[in-house]
Amino acid sequence: MRKLKLDELNRIGVDEFQSTPKYPVVVVLDNIRSGVNVGSFFRTADAFLIEKLCLCGFTPHPPHKEIFKTAIGAHESVKWESWDNTVDCAIDLKSKGYLCVGIEQTSQSQFLHQRSPMQQPVAVFFGNEVHGLSEDLLPLLDTVWEIPQFGTKHSLNVSITGGIVLWDIIRELNA
Amino acid sequence: MRKLKLDELNRIGVDEFQSTPKYPVVVVLDNIRSGVNVGSFFRTADAFLIEKLCLCGFTPHPPHKEIFKTAIGAHESVKWESWDNTVDCAIDLKSKGYLCVGIEQTSQSQFLHQRSPMQQPVAVFFGNEVHGLSEDLLPLLDTVWEIPQFGTKHSLNVSITGGIVLWDIIRELNA
Repeated sequence: MRKLKLDELNRIGVDEFQSTPKYPVVVVLDNIRSGVNVGSFFRTADAFLIEKLCLCGFTPHPPHKEIFKTAIGAHESVKWESWDNTVDCAIDLKSKGYLCVGIEQTSQSQFLHQRSPMQQPVAVFFGNEVHGLSEDLLPLLDTVWEIPQFGTKHSLNVSITGGIVLWDIIRELNA
Repeated sequence: MRKLKLDELNRIGVDEFQSTPKYPVVVVLDNIRSGVNVGSFFRTADAFLIEKLCLCGFTPHPPHKEIFKTAIGAHESVKWESWDNTVDCAIDLKSKGYLCVGIEQTSQSQFLHQRSPMQQPVAVFFGNEVHGLSEDLLPLLDTVWEIPQFGTKHSLNVSITGGIVLWDIIRELNA
């Protein structure tokens, strides 16, 4: 067994990325504070061929020093949009046929390992590092998923949560 | 639908965490450079009731400012050990019956969604942010898993990788 060299990974270039069919998944960031977290979402979205990132409210967007630091270039491949208001973004995505899924701890969340299978394009909403998803977004969500957590802390880091949820979808679509 | 309050999450305290049975999973960090990444592993390991973190080589360990920043206290709940050498740590874990799994892009990796089911305690090895797993570790690994990646970048961030792989195991153990 040997480690693969970089050129053996057969990664695609930015032009090829943009013309490659994506998984039917949109990521919506609702008032995320940290550019480090946003950059990390870019890098994960690149790896998993996500359609686009919607950067809503005060979520930072490129050009931004912290985003560049953790995206390490993925802001050039992954499509993104800036929205003043997350509710407007949700209304737009619903009108285009996306199932709107919030990631949150609520009275009606489905645990991620017990969620319904994917049956249509999905828009996944991730909330602020401290406050979670905006209250006025909840009535617009079709469902809410929650990562089961068994320890002392209230939540996972939002970019780790993003990696986990996006993998859970990509895993299913590759099954 | 309403968001749950913090006290409705029923999180356990540090004392209860330490006496709670863990999932049979050990995380080994092989010469990780960034305390931010190590702290993030602590937070994820807390959420998923991981047995312990083995911090090997030059991987920073508590007390450490960057670890405290991203662990947000999880270094107090999650058990950890410091090892001078990752190979010695692997030999110790093998002697205790752990399946040693590397996360790496190699000539013989199994894709994460095609990996074998868990049949014994597992030790998961994550490598350096730039260089991946140490070459001298490869002969000691029982198997290697790789997260399939379809974009332009060579790899995911290591702490995101950690969240994804640990979730993939916890998901199976909760199925």
